[in-house]
Amino acid sequence: MKDCVIVLFGGTGNLAYKKLYPALYKLYERNLMPNKFVILSLGRRNIELVEFKNIVKLKIKQFSNGYNEKVLNGFVDFIKYQILNFDKINDYVILKGRIDDCVCSEKMPQNRIFYLATAPGYFEIITNNLELSGILDIKKDAYKRIVIEKPFGKDLAEAKSINKTLRKVFSENEIYRTDHYLGKAMIQNIMVLRFSNALFEPLWNSECIDNVQITVSETIGVEERGGYYETSGAFRDMIQSHLIQILALFAMDVPNSLETEDIRNEKVKVIKAMKFFTNKDIVDNLVLGQYEGNSDVKSYVDESKVNPNSLTETFVAIGIDINNKRWKGTKFYLRTGKRLKKKIAEIVVEFKNTTVNKFYYDLLKNKDNAVNSANLLRIKIQPEEGISLSFNVKKPSTDNIIVQKEMDYCQSCDIDMKSPEAYEKLIIDAISGDQSLYARWDEVEAAWSFVDKISKTCLDRSRLLKKYKSSTWGPKEAELMMKKNDLKWWSK
Amino acid sequence: MKDCVIVLFGGTGNLAYKKLYPALYKLYERNLMPNKFVILSLGRRNIELVEFKNIVKLKIKQFSNGYNEKVLNGFVDFIKYQILNFDKINDYVILKGRIDDCVCSEKMPQNRIFYLATAPGYFEIITNNLELSGILDIKKDAYKRIVIEKPFGKDLAEAKSINKTLRKVFSENEIYRTDHYLGKAMIQNIMVLRFSNALFEPLWNSECIDNVQITVSETIGVEERGGYYETSGAFRDMIQSHLIQILALFAMDVPNSLETEDIRNEKVKVIKAMKFFTNKDIVDNLVLGQYEGNSDVKSYVDESKVNPNSLTETFVAIGIDINNKRWKGTKFYLRTGKRLKKKIAEIVVEFKNTTVNKFYYDLLKNKDNAVNSANLLRIKIQPEEGISLSFNVKKPSTDNIIVQKEMDYCQSCDIDMKSPEAYEKLIIDAISGDQSLYARWDEVEAAWSFVDKISKTCLDRSRLLKKYKSSTWGPKEAELMMKKNDLKWWSK
Repeated sequence: MKDCVIVLFGGTGNLAYKKLYPALYKLYERNLMPNKFVILSLGRRNIELVEFKNIVKLKIKQFSNGYNEKVLNGFVDFIKYQILNFDKINDYVILKGRIDDCVCSEKMPQNRIFYLATAPGYFEIITNNLELSGILDIKKDAYKRIVIEKPFGKDLAEAKSINKTLRKVFSENEIYRTDHYLGKAMIQNIMVLRFSNALFEPLWNSECIDNVQITVSETIGVEERGGYYETSGAFRDMIQSHLIQILALFAMDVPNSLETEDIRNEKVKVIKAMKFFTNKDIVDNLVLGQYEGNSDVKSYVDESKVNPNSLTETFVAIGIDINNKRWKGTKFYLRTGKRLKKKIAEIVVEFKNTTVNKFYYDLLKNKDNAVNSANLLRIKIQPEEGISLSFNVKKPSTDNIIVQKEMDYCQSCDIDMKSPEAYEKLIIDAISGDQSLYARWDEVEAAWSFVDKISKTCLDRSRLLKKYKSSTWGPKEAELMMKKNDLKWWSK
Repeated sequence: MKDCVIVLFGGTGNLAYKKLYPALYKLYERNLMPNKFVILSLGRRNIELVEFKNIVKLKIKQFSNGYNEKVLNGFVDFIKYQILNFDKINDYVILKGRIDDCVCSEKMPQNRIFYLATAPGYFEIITNNLELSGILDIKKDAYKRIVIEKPFGKDLAEAKSINKTLRKVFSENEIYRTDHYLGKAMIQNIMVLRFSNALFEPLWNSECIDNVQITVSETIGVEERGGYYETSGAFRDMIQSHLIQILALFAMDVPNSLETEDIRNEKVKVIKAMKFFTNKDIVDNLVLGQYEGNSDVKSYVDESKVNPNSLTETFVAIGIDINNKRWKGTKFYLRTGKRLKKKIAEIVVEFKNTTVNKFYYDLLKNKDNAVNSANLLRIKIQPEEGISLSFNVKKPSTDNIIVQKEMDYCQSCDIDMKSPEAYEKLIIDAISGDQSLYARWDEVEAAWSFVDKISKTCLDRSRLLKKYKSSTWGPKEAELMMKKNDLKWWSK
């Protein structure tokens, strides 16, 4: 792993404090950082370095899963701070000097990672100023990388524009588009499950799988992000990024290798194969919802910076077809929302109730106490991590009664299998130059194309948007959408 | 369920005391016995009925899993006792009178079940005397059934002879050949697992399964059964019956229905498809062993009624090919023995390490800490009942390390899923006329043919038989047999 300077835009922001410093600290604690590195934090406030280090220490103590005081003191020695206004070119010139000083005094190579923990509105100005200031002029044997957080724009056009700016100064393999869900342990496990277990791959197709349900639900409301959320909504904020990325990893064909580009090639094929929505699909396969408050919590329309007549959705349930050989006939149901009953992220694979499956049941003389349940494979992403498989067994008795039971592997319960934070994995990959868990432009573009088409088709939002009570599983229409197909949501 | 008289030959024997009375009591306790029934116990000793009932009560208290004093008193009221010598025709005439009296006084139909809990040497004389005494002359609308315990003879010729005698007076559908392993909850679960779970059947073939291992091991020695064991050995005592029956249930094709004869038709097809052993197979795929004692336990040759130069095997490991489309290329390894390390009965299915399975592993940069384990499906029959599935997952860390983990369903731990004793299921099936869990003659015949062929081929027993230490997993040759094929026994 090569020594590098990490330049952190938004170094005094929420993401940095809650996720990035704690992740960097953990990597340092586990001796996974390069021998030499500098974290050069940028912020708008004038803070003394000593004071800033103390703040970072406090935040790490607050948000990190355990710490060692001595190691923590060692860690903050790698942090430097500089005041910077995103639009002041002179600040970038100063920044260049700081970086050059670091590199020189520490005898480091010119490798630099620009981590943009900022709102996407600043991506273009930062990129332009980085170029203008000459910070990007480095030796050939050094690398420069830019890490950006989603959302990549609010629609396809804006995403394209951001990307165009980035690509003027960074090549595709220098751009790291973060989707922090891909850093989660069980998401990374999808590939291992599929490709290192002989028993799953033969079942991974529409002949064996009836439908796949991906649920990412939150119990919180929009909180202080009302302004942003009004321009986004659940569909753009969650479906376009996290849920489609999870779907792609789950549904992709077997790549030629596990090299980054081979995986991305397969992922983008799936995303491009998602059938565009027709007007009929909007009616049959899409439910948008918006949460209502109660005595404890506000309605979405009463949240700060939200239009009181807002038609922004805080809930989406969508049934997607994938037009390829493997998945023709299998529906992918994606569901996400705020103020839902439970915070959960999981994939449930519902296997087909095939002839063989119904065979035993059909021949039972006493069906009253018997079940005829489909097999379910559940990949639990959060808060619990694990895998379970529900299947039918004979109730041990002298009668022939079938009951559904579950085989379970609880990764969270396994002391040897404690998961690092998603950002640890993502940061270490950025430092070592592994883009596998970062989205390539054509994936983002294809996801936006799918989403844009729907946005343009469902013009009558006032009719489409259904209110739902907080702490429920969204509008009843989401259940009805499943019921029409004799299905139900398995994540509860 | 029709009222009936159960005539119990060997009514003062070990099997009756330890298994049959407790099972009958449990069925009665759970209200599963017919409204009217009589258990007419036969023995050679002269015992007063009151005394006999007290013995039965004591035995039930000793061997039953819980009891209720009041219910138990009610139960023994259904028991009658008669002295009977198997070869005295006059005793059968008296027996006939007793049965007729019961039927008359209780206003019952003439249904009668003859349960032969005796050594197989008596099957023929009892059958003949039953016929001669006229006990079997019943009305057309009544039934007569005979239940016999294994072993069905000591070789094919003797089995044929016993069967011929039985068939002179009983039709095939009146003969219930017990294999008490088939009464065990998890054995009955094999069919439910296969035919009511869509995800297993697609994998149930030689394309997906590398090998299947069936282990039934005991920690005890030959105990007081040395005399019988000398004429049998582990191969005839266990492989010919229990293990081949388990194999047949596991490996059979999907039957046309779950009716008894359809299942038996498929089972016998598998047994007949077992490839007969050549001389080369004897060398490559068969290990016979005999236990040696230590300071705590006797060697087999020192057991009572055992020839000091005995070449009888107390351990068998055998690799069987099944010559049909489904299983061509999948080996079935059967292993059984006495004085082994652990008492266990389980089936382990080892899935193939296919291209996909090895795919992820091959591409790992750091293989040192990674495993590349085959997926295993473990069907645990006893003492623990349950199912588990071991599979590979990514160790949650920033590195790519694969580890093997297990999904587990522990039926024994499940309060709702307490298994009845095997004999309860078998008795209730005999009363209600369900032969599904009893072996049909052609199954027994085919199993004996397979076994006989091997007995005739392996003439040089003194060279073939390997001694093994008590409390081990048998002779080292059993491990070597697997090792030659890069395999190992998974039951430990």
